[in-house]
Amino acid sequence: MKKYMHSPTRPFEVRSNSKVDDILKRMEGISFQGRNLSYALSIWRQMLKKDNVIFFGLAGAMVPAGMRKIISFLIKNRYIDCLVSTGANLYHDLHETLGKYHWIGSALVDDCDLQKKGIDRIYDTFALEKEFRQDDSFIMRFVKTLDLGKTYTTREFLHILGKKLCAVGKTEGILTSAYKAKVPIFCPALGDSSIGISMVWYLANQGKSPIFDIVRDAAEISGIAAKAKSTGVIYVGGGTPKNYIQQAEVIAAEFRKRRNIGHSYAIQITADVPHWGGLSGCTFNEAQSWGKISFKALKVNLYADATIVLPILVTALCQNLGESFKRRNLPSFDWKSKFALI
Amino acid sequence: MKKYMHSPTRPFEVRSNSKVDDILKRMEGISFQGRNLSYALSIWRQMLKKDNVIFFGLAGAMVPAGMRKIISFLIKNRYIDCLVSTGANLYHDLHETLGKYHWIGSALVDDCDLQKKGIDRIYDTFALEKEFRQDDSFIMRFVKTLDLGKTYTTREFLHILGKKLCAVGKTEGILTSAYKAKVPIFCPALGDSSIGISMVWYLANQGKSPIFDIVRDAAEISGIAAKAKSTGVIYVGGGTPKNYIQQAEVIAAEFRKRRNIGHSYAIQITADVPHWGGLSGCTFNEAQSWGKISFKALKVNLYADATIVLPILVTALCQNLGESFKRRNLPSFDWKSKFALI
Amino acid sequence: MKKYMHSPTRPFEVRSNSKVDDILKRMEGISFQGRNLSYALSIWRQMLKKDNVIFFGLAGAMVPAGMRKIISFLIKNRYIDCLVSTGANLYHDLHETLGKYHWIGSALVDDCDLQKKGIDRIYDTFALEKEFRQDDSFIMRFVKTLDLGKTYTTREFLHILGKKLCAVGKTEGILTSAYKAKVPIFCPALGDSSIGISMVWYLANQGKSPIFDIVRDAAEISGIAAKAKSTGVIYVGGGTPKNYIQQAEVIAAEFRKRRNIGHSYAIQITADVPHWGGLSGCTFNEAQSWGKISFKALKVNLYADATIVLPILVTALCQNLGESFKRRNLPSFDWKSKFALI
Amino acid sequence: MKKYMHSPTRPFEVRSNSKVDDILKRMEGISFQGRNLSYALSIWRQMLKKDNVIFFGLAGAMVPAGMRKIISFLIKNRYIDCLVSTGANLYHDLHETLGKYHWIGSALVDDCDLQKKGIDRIYDTFALEKEFRQDDSFIMRFVKTLDLGKTYTTREFLHILGKKLCAVGKTEGILTSAYKAKVPIFCPALGDSSIGISMVWYLANQGKSPIFDIVRDAAEISGIAAKAKSTGVIYVGGGTPKNYIQQAEVIAAEFRKRRNIGHSYAIQITADVPHWGGLSGCTFNEAQSWGKISFKALKVNLYADATIVLPILVTALCQNLGESFKRRNLPSFDWKSKFALI
Repeated sequence: MKKYMHSPTRPFEVRSNSKVDDILKRMEGISFQGRNLSYALSIWRQMLKKDNVIFFGLAGAMVPAGMRKIISFLIKNRYIDCLVSTGANLYHDLHETLGKYHWIGSALVDDCDLQKKGIDRIYDTFALEKEFRQDDSFIMRFVKTLDLGKTYTTREFLHILGKKLCAVGKTEGILTSAYKAKVPIFCPALGDSSIGISMVWYLANQGKSPIFDIVRDAAEISGIAAKAKSTGVIYVGGGTPKNYIQQAEVIAAEFRKRRNIGHSYAIQITADVPHWGGLSGCTFNEAQSWGKISFKALKVNLYADATIVLPILVTALCQNLGESFKRRNLPSFDWKSKFALI
Repeated sequence: MKKYMHSPTRPFEVRSNSKVDDILKRMEGISFQGRNLSYALSIWRQMLKKDNVIFFGLAGAMVPAGMRKIISFLIKNRYIDCLVSTGANLYHDLHETLGKYHWIGSALVDDCDLQKKGIDRIYDTFALEKEFRQDDSFIMRFVKTLDLGKTYTTREFLHILGKKLCAVGKTEGILTSAYKAKVPIFCPALGDSSIGISMVWYLANQGKSPIFDIVRDAAEISGIAAKAKSTGVIYVGGGTPKNYIQQAEVIAAEFRKRRNIGHSYAIQITADVPHWGGLSGCTFNEAQSWGKISFKALKVNLYADATIVLPILVTALCQNLGESFKRRNLPSFDWKSKFALI
Repeated sequence: MKKYMHSPTRPFEVRSNSKVDDILKRMEGISFQGRNLSYALSIWRQMLKKDNVIFFGLAGAMVPAGMRKIISFLIKNRYIDCLVSTGANLYHDLHETLGKYHWIGSALVDDCDLQKKGIDRIYDTFALEKEFRQDDSFIMRFVKTLDLGKTYTTREFLHILGKKLCAVGKTEGILTSAYKAKVPIFCPALGDSSIGISMVWYLANQGKSPIFDIVRDAAEISGIAAKAKSTGVIYVGGGTPKNYIQQAEVIAAEFRKRRNIGHSYAIQITADVPHWGGLSGCTFNEAQSWGKISFKALKVNLYADATIVLPILVTALCQNLGESFKRRNLPSFDWKSKFALI
Repeated sequence: MKKYMHSPTRPFEVRSNSKVDDILKRMEGISFQGRNLSYALSIWRQMLKKDNVIFFGLAGAMVPAGMRKIISFLIKNRYIDCLVSTGANLYHDLHETLGKYHWIGSALVDDCDLQKKGIDRIYDTFALEKEFRQDDSFIMRFVKTLDLGKTYTTREFLHILGKKLCAVGKTEGILTSAYKAKVPIFCPALGDSSIGISMVWYLANQGKSPIFDIVRDAAEISGIAAKAKSTGVIYVGGGTPKNYIQQAEVIAAEFRKRRNIGHSYAIQITADVPHWGGLSGCTFNEAQSWGKISFKALKVNLYADATIVLPILVTALCQNLGESFKRRNLPSFDWKSKFALI
């Protein structure tokens, strides 16, 4: 019996003067996803220890959703060390960095009417097609400044794009923060986004376009994992960002001749479920069978919408951080060396 | 264009000293469910105005989940005026009021092993079968004290049960708070719960058991809605509690000869979706076609797990409540009159 | 290794002349929910053996969805022996039996406009409020014929209602088929439905209404389980029907002094998931910890919409049924005896 | 009223001798997802008209799920004209084409134990890590045969890989069928898969690896859409395949100077939902605001697991196809021309 009955739940008590950090801490005594939220905070804090490298996968329309400044905050304060994103989020980040907006809209509208008016809808959020065309032009002008005689990894491309945006941008965003903090951003399906669309138009007009070395790209991110003493992963949604970070560990294990295997800390915030069989919804347990997640990993599958959870979790994270975080060794990278991580 | 483009989103900015109330207020500028969470807080606050009667529907294993003290808090402080619950939540409330516990467990266990050890599992939460049997005995002893020559509504039964628990209980819970605050609790499927099971055993042993007048029960809750100047609804999950409160308005409209129709404020916290067609997942828009929700209602479908949202929402609710709440006329009830509400 | 690697998957091959029974049989070689669908057919067939009693729980708007004739077919052909339903499905069944319709509609409409036109929406399906009012009048007239001096179980009430509908109905439906086949129907939350609404109006007009003995109701269904040699359960959705059938086994185990415990066959078709913690979405494994499902049960959680799965599964079920079904002993009931089942 | 009440639903009647094609046809009279399934069949049939080009997006672990032969069948019989897939599905296709298996497993296992035994789990399906390593070696040997001095689109790479597999493969699969039928396959995130992993290892060992021109890749697929008289899309899951085909239309509209815009037929089979805001779950209505889907498109969002729906839908599709299909002009491609489509 004792095998199972460790400690009773502690029903949540409302206290009007609670800080959010305190609320989440007390949610460890409840059940279901509330407990998982509390546990996610605890795992993230333990990730922030000396010598651990933190990968962050970002999928879903999280920038239109209003998560851009949170991601930027995480980068600037080095709560994360490496970002893997869909191209869409980076394009939407560029959009806002250039001083344009997403708009509060509604999901209950006539989409044909929107189309006629030049408004693109992202669930309950709107954007102006005309302004997106200006972003496309910006990207085409940016591409013109690149050396098309060489190949780029997406990390290199996004680093230079971040630099450009630091020079001309109107607000601080993901790409600019990452440039300044030397936090690498990878985008494994860059061609599958409006950044890719802009480059296709450049190609159609100019007859040439940047060539990406996607194999070296995958090698670069794996090189970080290969040299790290330990790694942690945080996934917002699934998609290519989750898989890219998961596979980085599979490659890294081979690079380092399989001494230790698997990410050591793992948080995923998702609304997907395991029983459809896809990678996006699979559990970290399943990932353990592949060696992607360590047997001893601290791990949690948090079933929740990130637009609810991220504002609360990140606010809590930066409250009462404690001494261990201050003594954190920030990972830094030398991309000319074999394994990137210094 | 202006028809659509009212105001830009305001990406969430992390501030380490934020109170949760402030976090939720600033989430009104973001998108998707985060915005809905912010809007839910705003609607709940507006519900707390003079003369509005607030119904709260509670489904799902919310007491094992650790939500018991929150519901009790809402009752005591009259953030809600009438509770409709599944029988299970009330049974589990009784369990904890009698000094027993739910236990922190895991969803990844051998359930046959649990059964052999007398442990019942509720997702990642455990309870002892032996203690549940003690609860059953308590209910059977309680039933013995009832007048089996008359009929009960579930409200009457639960009120007397609350009184009994006030006398013998070890902690404050839902049934006891409701008894003290004179907040009615309805349970439209009382027989479909462990309270019902205990009564069946009583019937099997004693040859008689309480008779419930479920039609008068439905009339009683409708009588509240019929006389209220306006009504608000908050649903945690769907099931019978949601439908019972929704149909109360349909009945009430007939009682009051259809002057005004539909609940005026409506919040639902659910993980169900509309496209399976069930009542639990249906939108408040669909409910408007039936006249259950007013055309002008403030309403939000918040897609989230209540164990994440309730602790945060209720903590925020009681911060900076303002003057309007203090001037609230608490609805009170006279169950001998035709329409209950005084 | 052999512990795990029993047999390879057999990818599904398209054959244009396949009967659906054959398609489902060949889906046993695939993965995820397709395999579960195949397994559900197999389990249902095994349920149809001598002396097994089959309970069927029906939740969700399955009659408006067009499942009425399928349920009627299952009853008439005794693929099921006992039905537990929400009140809504029975009300909608009565609606169609009286010769009225549900209508093909759309989920993308102006619900306020529908309300003004007297149209009630159920996701993408419509019904006329005016015709529902005629149904209400029918129920009120029916109630007038009851002996209000006695108490009813929902089974008794629905049996008499089925008889009435056999006399006046225009088409064959669930209630009429069940009356003729002597298949009992239980409705644990009858007051929480339009049948309940009609009775409230009767009460408001006439000062009295039927009294239901919900404890005896729960005893009656448990009595079936208590005497059965074995039992099988099929759940379409969750809600009160699922819980009522699950708890029937808990009560029955006590009735029969716990010789054997748990339903022996178990199929659930649901779009709900376990990780919100509710009973509707919980797995049959979880149910094993409670003794509701036998350790040795054949069981499957099929994650699917019933409107896709039922037409296919039931068509397949009646193809090539084989000899074992023909030799099936149909359970029959004597409600005056202690344990109902003969 | 007539605006809404076109025709009554026709509840599904069970007929034991029904062919699946007939079952689906009769499901057009029911509601919710059953009706959508029927409508999906109808739309797919209308897609098969003269001069329409059909794109098929494949995400999720559909090959391990047992869908490989169905996809191969669709390609061979030209029910689809262009495939966009995740890398994982193509890798798993190669695995089976080389004579290896996926295995029937279970989701309820000890994943650490699996890892020790060299078994990788995909929900309820297993594969041997050792055999995957043989696949990796095969890919490395294949890479060695490529001209690393030039750049490849993923379409070109996969075409040559298909040719190789035709020569050495043991069974017919997706890549081999596509090679023979000259159906192009695109993989927008090829580096993010085990094919990518194998190439990273090749790079690590040999110091060089194939260079992919992902911008030209996006241009190639857009070129098909640009020249097509009309286009149809079928999405199994979301992810990069869905977005890549959707954006192809955005690019194509620019290529052809916006005469007509939007795909004309659209089916998506998904378990994702719109209210999380991501592209995978968004509706085709949302896509209309972007001009990705035509105002007049026949379109359906079918909420279902593809492992249930694909075997049934494709079997039905090839029954009673009728004359229009026989007269279909099969699109063919000349990749050296500007716009590919001949």
